[in-house]
Amino acid sequence: MLELPGLIDPHVHLREPGGTHKEDFETGTIAALAGGFTAVLAMPNTQPPLVDSASLELAQLAARAKARCDYGIFLGAGEGNTSAASALAPWACGLKVYMDHTYGPLRMQSLPALIEHFQRWPGSRPIACHAEGHSLAVVLAMAHLFDRRVHICHVSTAVEIQLIRLAKERGTQVTCEVTPHHLFLSKSNLPALGSGRGEVRPRLATPEDVAALWESLEVIDCFATDHAPHTLAEKDGEQPPPGFPGLETALSLMLGAVNEERLGMDGLVLRMHTNPQRIFDLPPQRESRIEIDEDHVWEVRGVELHSRCGWSPFEGMKLRGRVRRVYLRGQLAYEDGQALAPPGSGRDLISTPVPA
Amino acid sequence: MLELPGLIDPHVHLREPGGTHKEDFETGTIAALAGGFTAVLAMPNTQPPLVDSASLELAQLAARAKARCDYGIFLGAGEGNTSAASALAPWACGLKVYMDHTYGPLRMQSLPALIEHFQRWPGSRPIACHAEGHSLAVVLAMAHLFDRRVHICHVSTAVEIQLIRLAKERGTQVTCEVTPHHLFLSKSNLPALGSGRGEVRPRLATPEDVAALWESLEVIDCFATDHAPHTLAEKDGEQPPPGFPGLETALSLMLGAVNEERLGMDGLVLRMHTNPQRIFDLPPQRESRIEIDEDHVWEVRGVELHSRCGWSPFEGMKLRGRVRRVYLRGQLAYEDGQALAPPGSGRDLISTPVPA
Repeated sequence: MLELPGLIDPHVHLREPGGTHKEDFETGTIAALAGGFTAVLAMPNTQPPLVDSASLELAQLAARAKARCDYGIFLGAGEGNTSAASALAPWACGLKVYMDHTYGPLRMQSLPALIEHFQRWPGSRPIACHAEGHSLAVVLAMAHLFDRRVHICHVSTAVEIQLIRLAKERGTQVTCEVTPHHLFLSKSNLPALGSGRGEVRPRLATPEDVAALWESLEVIDCFATDHAPHTLAEKDGEQPPPGFPGLETALSLMLGAVNEERLGMDGLVLRMHTNPQRIFDLPPQRESRIEIDEDHVWEVRGVELHSRCGWSPFEGMKLRGRVRRVYLRGQLAYEDGQALAPPGSGRDLISTPVPA
Repeated sequence: MLELPGLIDPHVHLREPGGTHKEDFETGTIAALAGGFTAVLAMPNTQPPLVDSASLELAQLAARAKARCDYGIFLGAGEGNTSAASALAPWACGLKVYMDHTYGPLRMQSLPALIEHFQRWPGSRPIACHAEGHSLAVVLAMAHLFDRRVHICHVSTAVEIQLIRLAKERGTQVTCEVTPHHLFLSKSNLPALGSGRGEVRPRLATPEDVAALWESLEVIDCFATDHAPHTLAEKDGEQPPPGFPGLETALSLMLGAVNEERLGMDGLVLRMHTNPQRIFDLPPQRESRIEIDEDHVWEVRGVELHSRCGWSPFEGMKLRGRVRRVYLRGQLAYEDGQALAPPGSGRDLISTPVPA
């Protein structure tokens, strides 16, 4: 039985408030435990988006009542909350800036507002950026000019990882994450996935981009799922929203890479536990660990997953290695498909609730 | 009689090849002499654009035959000429990158091509960038990451000059220019100008932006006209192209600022002679100087200007100080409204012609 520290996913969408038909803090954290994660950092592009104390409190209340693993919550950077955001920093695991179009209403189009966020955001936790292509260059400039830490979400292309490599070499305070789906899927999988189910931001890239990511592992600080559940009715509907679920397949996919010697086990733990903890300045989760049956081969079936969305872009894929048990702060929290940690047992790793 | 060194304008559009009904190397360099300039650097967004040896040679042939003051010619960065551009560097005063939409077909939309230009362009002369707003941040990142010199054209807003100031403080190799029209006109002048004649890129900014530029003089390396003539028929037509003529009004406008003590005479010479020469690594024009009647007050009348376009956005404005004589390499090249230097007497400051 392989034993690893509890994994930390720095990028999940738990859809609460406002999208609980897709996922909520309970189903999402059960999916997390089933995937070997003892902590997840939840994104703010909810309904309403988490851009002020009232909306942040909505998410905190839901999480406190329902979460079955530990969590942090991101604050969203809007064009109108430059002051509020910095004041709320002690309660957030980071500031999330959406430079490019994706799911939800948050998008930073104003350069003066972006600058003001970079000027005001306190330095202890990073500014996490959805920043593709030219937008990546913009936030690398901001990090350099305003001497701030940026964490680049879901890097997906050769040119992006090249720029991040250079920025690191030049001393810019930049870290980054790559998703399993950008490491294991490419545009070539789109015909099989179908156009609606294949919708994701950043889009699936070329096989050359995928190869460039694998060749740049030393530049990649974290593997993050960007778990972004939508129902199959939505994905197969008229206007399919972008996003893949990923919490329950990430570890097995990365263990496959270890098995194929594309990645060392140390490298996996570094990117799925140690680096997320360090980058987001998370307190240690003492006595938290996971047990994995390394040789267990299983076939991904969406309907069998714990996420409320009930599907996977890896449907039908045979993966090796499956989580048997998860211990969260000394307690057995998950065993063989069953979440044992009660709702509300997950802790906010960042803060006590926002004071009323 | 005030005597100054021959002025150097690092940003003019002489419209040749392809737009000689607006201007050509002869009328444009006469306008330059009339404005006190003994050298101009010509932009590559011509028809055809100057992106390869054949098109560059077209411009060189025209300039060699017609120019009445000295000149350099920019090469345009296209998405398909990353190799050709670096090979042609010895014949160009710089590489011009159009990040944003403006007049003509050149625009750099591909991030990989932009990166390749930054990787390949030799370091001795700058990459001049039309880069507004977010695009400015992109090229500041490129300059930092690829350790290249960038020269930011026609800075027009408070936020842009703020970013350039920070980049200089952080050691990025960046210089910049501001046009007289962005220092003396704002959006508030648009009703009087009319919507067609007021079209210019970057657009006329807010009075607050104009004030921020004046308060940031120490960040501004050059005053450049961005002399961009179009005929009045075009400016008053259905789809007015963006651009103002500026060669014949720039010095008088800036002398007005000296007269009002918003600028020192040393600061004027620094930004209209010394810095353009240094930044573009131009050879000295020995025995070149201009004589100015400082007290001469004149009213701008487009029809009296030498530019073929025959209009000015400063129409009717009373300016103080007018060029009487221009000496170019020891020869009297201009006197009291008459260009005396013959066509073809202007020299290419950068190179002998591209070898056949």
